[in-house]
Amino acid sequence: MNQGLDFQSIIFNLQTYWASQGCMIWQPYYSQLGAGTMNPATFLRVLGPEPWRVAYVEPSVRPDDGRYGINPNRLQQHHQFQVILKPDPGNPQELYLKSLLALGINPEEHDIRFVEDNWESPALSSWGLGWEVWLDGQEITQFTYFQQAGGMTLDVPAVELTYGLERIAMTLQGVSHFKDIRWNDQRLYGDVYQVAEREHSTYYYEIADVPRLREMFNLFSQEAENALKKGLVLPAYDNVIKCSHTFNVLDARGAVGFTERQALFGKMRDLSRKVAEAYYAQREEMGFPWLKQVETQQHEVESLLLAQSEIAERADFLFEIGTEELPASELDRAIEQLQPAFETWLAEMRLEHDGMKVQGTPRRLAVSVKNLQTRQTERTLELKGPPADRAFDNEGKPTKVAEGFARSKGLELDQLAVKTFENGRYVVAEISEPGRTSLELLSEKLPLMITNLRFSKSMRWNQSGASFSRPVRWLVAILDDQVVPFEFAGLQSGRTTWGLRFSTQGSTTVDSLAAYEAYLDEQGIILDPLARRQNIWQQALRLTESVNGTLVDDPDLLAEIGNLVEQPTALLGTFDRRFLENLPPEVLIGVMKKHQRYIPVLDQEGKLTNHFIVVRNGDHQHAEIVMDGNLQVILARFADAEFFVQEDMKKKLEDFVPKLAQLTFQKQLGSMLDKTERIKMISLKLAEKLGLDETEKATTMRIAQLCKADLASEMVVEMTSLQGVMGKYYARHSGENEVVSQGVFDYYLPSSSEDQLPGSRPATVVGLADRLDSIAGLFAVGLTPTGNKDPFALRRTAIGLVSLLLGKNLDFDTRWALQQAGAVQSVPFTTEVEDQATAFITGRLHTILLERGVAHDVVDAVEAVHGENPAQANHAAEVLSRWVAKTEWSTILPAFSRCVRMTRELEREFLVEPSVLTEAEEIRLYHAVSQAKTSLNQSPSFENALVQVEGLVSPINAFFDKVLVMVEDQALRESRLGILQRIAALSKPYADLSKLEGF
Amino acid sequence: MNQGLDFQSIIFNLQTYWASQGCMIWQPYYSQLGAGTMNPATFLRVLGPEPWRVAYVEPSVRPDDGRYGINPNRLQQHHQFQVILKPDPGNPQELYLKSLLALGINPEEHDIRFVEDNWESPALSSWGLGWEVWLDGQEITQFTYFQQAGGMTLDVPAVELTYGLERIAMTLQGVSHFKDIRWNDQRLYGDVYQVAEREHSTYYYEIADVPRLREMFNLFSQEAENALKKGLVLPAYDNVIKCSHTFNVLDARGAVGFTERQALFGKMRDLSRKVAEAYYAQREEMGFPWLKQVETQQHEVESLLLAQSEIAERADFLFEIGTEELPASELDRAIEQLQPAFETWLAEMRLEHDGMKVQGTPRRLAVSVKNLQTRQTERTLELKGPPADRAFDNEGKPTKVAEGFARSKGLELDQLAVKTFENGRYVVAEISEPGRTSLELLSEKLPLMITNLRFSKSMRWNQSGASFSRPVRWLVAILDDQVVPFEFAGLQSGRTTWGLRFSTQGSTTVDSLAAYEAYLDEQGIILDPLARRQNIWQQALRLTESVNGTLVDDPDLLAEIGNLVEQPTALLGTFDRRFLENLPPEVLIGVMKKHQRYIPVLDQEGKLTNHFIVVRNGDHQHAEIVMDGNLQVILARFADAEFFVQEDMKKKLEDFVPKLAQLTFQKQLGSMLDKTERIKMISLKLAEKLGLDETEKATTMRIAQLCKADLASEMVVEMTSLQGVMGKYYARHSGENEVVSQGVFDYYLPSSSEDQLPGSRPATVVGLADRLDSIAGLFAVGLTPTGNKDPFALRRTAIGLVSLLLGKNLDFDTRWALQQAGAVQSVPFTTEVEDQATAFITGRLHTILLERGVAHDVVDAVEAVHGENPAQANHAAEVLSRWVAKTEWSTILPAFSRCVRMTRELEREFLVEPSVLTEAEEIRLYHAVSQAKTSLNQSPSFENALVQVEGLVSPINAFFDKVLVMVEDQALRESRLGILQRIAALSKPYADLSKLEGF
Repeated sequence: MNQGLDFQSIIFNLQTYWASQGCMIWQPYYSQLGAGTMNPATFLRVLGPEPWRVAYVEPSVRPDDGRYGINPNRLQQHHQFQVILKPDPGNPQELYLKSLLALGINPEEHDIRFVEDNWESPALSSWGLGWEVWLDGQEITQFTYFQQAGGMTLDVPAVELTYGLERIAMTLQGVSHFKDIRWNDQRLYGDVYQVAEREHSTYYYEIADVPRLREMFNLFSQEAENALKKGLVLPAYDNVIKCSHTFNVLDARGAVGFTERQALFGKMRDLSRKVAEAYYAQREEMGFPWLKQVETQQHEVESLLLAQSEIAERADFLFEIGTEELPASELDRAIEQLQPAFETWLAEMRLEHDGMKVQGTPRRLAVSVKNLQTRQTERTLELKGPPADRAFDNEGKPTKVAEGFARSKGLELDQLAVKTFENGRYVVAEISEPGRTSLELLSEKLPLMITNLRFSKSMRWNQSGASFSRPVRWLVAILDDQVVPFEFAGLQSGRTTWGLRFSTQGSTTVDSLAAYEAYLDEQGIILDPLARRQNIWQQALRLTESVNGTLVDDPDLLAEIGNLVEQPTALLGTFDRRFLENLPPEVLIGVMKKHQRYIPVLDQEGKLTNHFIVVRNGDHQHAEIVMDGNLQVILARFADAEFFVQEDMKKKLEDFVPKLAQLTFQKQLGSMLDKTERIKMISLKLAEKLGLDETEKATTMRIAQLCKADLASEMVVEMTSLQGVMGKYYARHSGENEVVSQGVFDYYLPSSSEDQLPGSRPATVVGLADRLDSIAGLFAVGLTPTGNKDPFALRRTAIGLVSLLLGKNLDFDTRWALQQAGAVQSVPFTTEVEDQATAFITGRLHTILLERGVAHDVVDAVEAVHGENPAQANHAAEVLSRWVAKTEWSTILPAFSRCVRMTRELEREFLVEPSVLTEAEEIRLYHAVSQAKTSLNQSPSFENALVQVEGLVSPINAFFDKVLVMVEDQALRESRLGILQRIAALSKPYADLSKLEGF
Repeated sequence: MNQGLDFQSIIFNLQTYWASQGCMIWQPYYSQLGAGTMNPATFLRVLGPEPWRVAYVEPSVRPDDGRYGINPNRLQQHHQFQVILKPDPGNPQELYLKSLLALGINPEEHDIRFVEDNWESPALSSWGLGWEVWLDGQEITQFTYFQQAGGMTLDVPAVELTYGLERIAMTLQGVSHFKDIRWNDQRLYGDVYQVAEREHSTYYYEIADVPRLREMFNLFSQEAENALKKGLVLPAYDNVIKCSHTFNVLDARGAVGFTERQALFGKMRDLSRKVAEAYYAQREEMGFPWLKQVETQQHEVESLLLAQSEIAERADFLFEIGTEELPASELDRAIEQLQPAFETWLAEMRLEHDGMKVQGTPRRLAVSVKNLQTRQTERTLELKGPPADRAFDNEGKPTKVAEGFARSKGLELDQLAVKTFENGRYVVAEISEPGRTSLELLSEKLPLMITNLRFSKSMRWNQSGASFSRPVRWLVAILDDQVVPFEFAGLQSGRTTWGLRFSTQGSTTVDSLAAYEAYLDEQGIILDPLARRQNIWQQALRLTESVNGTLVDDPDLLAEIGNLVEQPTALLGTFDRRFLENLPPEVLIGVMKKHQRYIPVLDQEGKLTNHFIVVRNGDHQHAEIVMDGNLQVILARFADAEFFVQEDMKKKLEDFVPKLAQLTFQKQLGSMLDKTERIKMISLKLAEKLGLDETEKATTMRIAQLCKADLASEMVVEMTSLQGVMGKYYARHSGENEVVSQGVFDYYLPSSSEDQLPGSRPATVVGLADRLDSIAGLFAVGLTPTGNKDPFALRRTAIGLVSLLLGKNLDFDTRWALQQAGAVQSVPFTTEVEDQATAFITGRLHTILLERGVAHDVVDAVEAVHGENPAQANHAAEVLSRWVAKTEWSTILPAFSRCVRMTRELEREFLVEPSVLTEAEEIRLYHAVSQAKTSLNQSPSFENALVQVEGLVSPINAFFDKVLVMVEDQALRESRLGILQRIAALSKPYADLSKLEGF
């Protein structure tokens, strides 16, 4: 491969190939774009119903991808080759693969994969579904079915291909650093671009002036508005593009905080929507002139004729939906739906069989039924009609009622009979229902089976308007040896199926389920997902054992890998040991699992080794090429991370703190450095409240000081998900003690209501302080979550806060805590805001308790009392749930409830004058209540309160049986009410039992 | 031609062709560029000694070329194809012509011309020499030898080719509007770009916000500075490019006045120089890495051996310098130098001949000599040495002196002889000087002949460092039938010459002058420039007569046309009559002559017709294709002008006045509208001073109001040279009276000291006011011309002012006038400034008088008195010049001078007491002086003053002969001095005669 095409020939060949496919060859845009998608030749032209085929190079500028020219394949400018096919030509994957041949890449010699990758551009308000195309683990192309652009759903989905030219060139030429790519026979890529990479990286990361960039952003966005007002689409869009680049530079400078990001994105989204709408309107007004050019390609629906030939009484059935590569999770989802749906339907249709299975691979969903009845059994149905006396007159002649019934059912009058039922005599008619053929029934049902499938994300791909997870490209439906004819998404069912994508055979026709299964076997395709997983696991274990390693069972990963291949072959890879030393295992494992879907290999002690398992799609042929490619990819990715970590470790963690001043948290609330200061102040209050000792307090303040520092590190800027993780490592590297280091990670815990909690009290305190600060601050500036909008993830923040209080059982008043946090904000924290924020946290508590299985009424009961103290609410809920579950509760609650209901409207508390009491039952109750109160004073707890209430059940019931409370005598009445008030008061400090069901 | 290549295939073919020539294929830049030259792949890579070959498309954005998509070939964005060849490959024109073949253009079927067009970018501080390449009159390519970039002289000149792809496509496809260009087999250019043209034109001309653009310019330039400070070349350059585009938009908005333009250009120039220097330093520091890649192509200089064969005593000589197309004026200049230089040299060399001629065409300079002596006549030289008595002792033996002399001359002692001269006896030696061969002499001299030629602009093209008007590509030097060997610019002389560029024959070898002349004849090449002109004139006359037209003799145009062709063939063209109605003849003629070098045809009344003469290079073959092409070009150009004029005529001329507020005259002095207001105020003062009547005053004010209005019109924005011309037409169209309309044009007159003057007094007044305002204002803000820097053309302004005063004989004090102008400025006009400005105008007067042939001393004499009143100075100079020329002057001046010299040191004026006078001569003189004074009082004029002085010559001389002035007697002495003082005073009001030579 060392003599692969040079860089400019790659471009030539792609241009030539796509020109031959009817694409206009276009030029790069005259503005810095992050991607070819932003070129108006894509962004605008995909809108509306007009056809459009275009191909062009786009040198794409992404400031925060710059690595000073050091990293082997990260560049602030890379070259994309962009293709748009609109409408979908029906075989875009095949056209794409042919284009690889034009580059000298023979798909049969490689592991080429279509790996789910959905694309979204918030700034452009655009999205699409599709894949990354992997060549031996290396992403070389983005393949997207564009669904929406500028907030407008596309009239006709467009296929977008984006080739990464540098990666393709590196692969073709067998070089491992972009600088070594041959551009032509004289110059290397590095000759002409290495200095550019260094300079632009320096500029974007270190030099570009932030206030000036902000100013530019404003100017461009004003110009965009300006142009839009005059209906000038392209000039407006040019300015939107400039906003976008300016934003990207600001971002690379680390100057955009979370909330500013929201604002700027909002601005860009708004503008690009307006641009898209204006463009659409413009084309519409022009009458979509290119539509006239389209040849009428209306799909002629052939009449679907059922086969007439003989068919056995029972026969095997095969239904295969052939698709472009389904995302792993959607494959599972589809199987899970199809299995019961099909099973139920067969039963409803009275079609017996000897077993039915739904299986699938990324390229196919298959329903197979053994020995299916080919015709429903005939049956007789009895139809019940009107009462006999109304249907027949006295003379036994049918009335109009009978006639009406007969007509409505399509019966003759003489088919009506009379039958006696439990509730009287009625007209009946017996209809013999002939069994319909399965062929007919399936022919009607199968398209609905497809249509009824639901995916988490669906797409359209052609003008049929049909929607599915990915395009459906073929349909096989065979009963016995006959095709079950139907149509879906412009396709007709048939007997043609496809094997492995890169099998030389291509498609084949099958005559039966058995033939189909034999064909898949021959192709090495394992149709059953579970079998594929087991197969992979066995292969992986064997390879792991060969290096004396172990594997951690990771069902999610295994399931995903299993769903990415049809013919799994596991290969063992080994990377340079130095990465084990230079990078935290979290980083290595993260990259391997998340980016590459490799299975990491551990040693016998459970420590990460430098081995990993790659699962390719295909057999062992050319395995060395495949592994070579994969190794290159992982090395590059690790090198990338290594670069960041090494850069970061040149400083101490504390040295990043001042840089936080450049990261905006929120415009009004200041920078991340400001937030850090507030976290420290709040932490101090909490530490005192929670009684931390001096050592713990010092640790708390140190964690607070460092907790946000890693946000300014290169590695975290690159992979935000590593926040905390890198902080921990950098803290250790900087010589911080272990509690502090771990705390810098731990204070993020829990990230959900099920996650683990921080290990130390100081980390817990900082975690609380951070969350309280966010809630208090963002509520104070009015950024409260509304409806399903929660751009600042305040719900998650509050859930984390509550989970901490519950998990650590911190008896803690959230209102008080919010007051502390409110006091250190730079904006006013009013009582109204305090009420809102407190109520918001109570709301999260409510949700969490419900999620933990606490009954709705119990939650209401405890919340009424402890809504602002989650730990206590939780405790009370536990106690109350236990009591409510008791069988005795059905007697306890009514008794108690009677006391409460009788007294709750009273406006004052009555004294009990024992001397006026007359009845034995009231005296007994009075004494019992007094005893209960004494016990509760001595040992106050919700549990005890309920024990005492339980003890009062019998005296209460006796009391009500014998004693009339509302007597004339005022003193007596008030004393009796006083007794009941005392009972009602017993549980008041713990819960409002009146909220319970059955109260 | 209707099936010519589609647009994208044109690009493909050019890319493929230039890739095969070793060019890197590059991508368009990610920023809006006015031209491919600005792409760093050109602007930076041409710097330094490293080799570089690159080719790329550049969609080039020029806001003020936008025509809303209406004009057939003016677009705000057009596509350039840019090629850089560095170093010069030696045959770039041939490589270029082959690239046309790759596009299906057969040079033999067209009139392809290399028409001088030197390129300069003030913003980039870059320039080069070269041509526009014309295909049948249509400019399709810019061909430049880059000499300087970013203010740095290129180490190695680079060849830059810039193809205009739209024009090429239109020609190839035979379409007459850009929108009809086929892009590929599905879409037309207009499908994808026509809306873009409309929208961007609207944005650039009407919508883009001027204050925001200014702000952007500042931000970008600050960012450029910022990046430069950190040594980041490319980020800095990106920002310079953005400045440039922003400037272009500002300019299209009509918002940049003359002085702001200077400032912004200055900024861009400064930045691009710094960028270039930083890039150079960077490459230098890297050790110019690409130099290593260059194959050592050192030119091996072969030893030049003189031919040894026999040669006749007299033989014809031919010397031909074969060049790439020389600019017309440079060709004349070269011939004018070569003729005397060669002639003189032959004489000095004692080489007789029967006639020598220097002739030339754009592609060759040829010296031919008939019957040249092939060897110098032998001669004897007598060398004169020291005096004989010092060279020989008494015994006649040679002394050391003789030995020294002999040694210094390389003689033996016995070669010395003694000879008697007028002044004594000296040693002599006779040396016989053998005649050297002409071959030898020419071999030494010819390279110097080339080197010594001086051009107004010279260029270098290869590493020899040789410089010439355009590259020299071959050298023929033949004496008899022998090559005269020499070398220049890496070429060796020989006998190979080239015929017509597109002759199928290519080159040929010639053995003699006769063969050469025969060959040129055969090729149809007319070597003699005068003969070519005559030939063209005759052909043009014949064609003109065929349409009953006339031609105006325009020797400059004819000379230029003659120098653009080797084989002239005149063709008659006819354009649409409507342009005669829609456009002023100035516009039509300007376009035809200046842009296309056509000869306009007039009718018998001298009015412009719709015929014109094109002179092609070549014969009548394919004449229809050539004329077709030319017609397309002229139609497009006229349509362009028509568009502007029609746009403009939608308004009245006065309506443009408010728009002048957007045109800055100078930052401190405000807009052109402000200037208009000042012109009105100054005009009023002048009108009063010059005694204009009320009607004239009203006319003056109207002209003043409208005089700058056309600067805001589209047509003048497009072709600045039409300022005033368009104003005149628009004024008429707007219903202004004829004096006003003509005045709007006339006030610009005279544009030089020889130009014609305004026709009316009002126009004259406005012309004065405009100039006075500029001088007063610009001097007040310190923008005085210094050295050879005069960016505001104040010298020309002052020359115009003085010429007006002289031409109209306006007796007018410039100091007073400047005071009036100074008084209306918005900045202080101090006495110091007043002095400077007045002196500056006097300086121009001085120059003009000298240019008019007034003697230096006369100018000084009149200037001493009338320096601030040019009209009077001029009058005095006329009078004095006449007198100085008289023979009597030699007696007048000494007599007068004696009177002046004797009295000029006196500190007071003495009374003459007639009674004390004693001598007859003094009494006679006294009376004569009294008479003269009386006459002068009655008829005061310089002429009369001089007449009176002349009359006094005889009495003065008699007086001095007889009378001693400085006697003891004080009364007598003072009276005598008093008489002399009265004489000296006679001419004082008119001139200071003491400044005259001979005084």
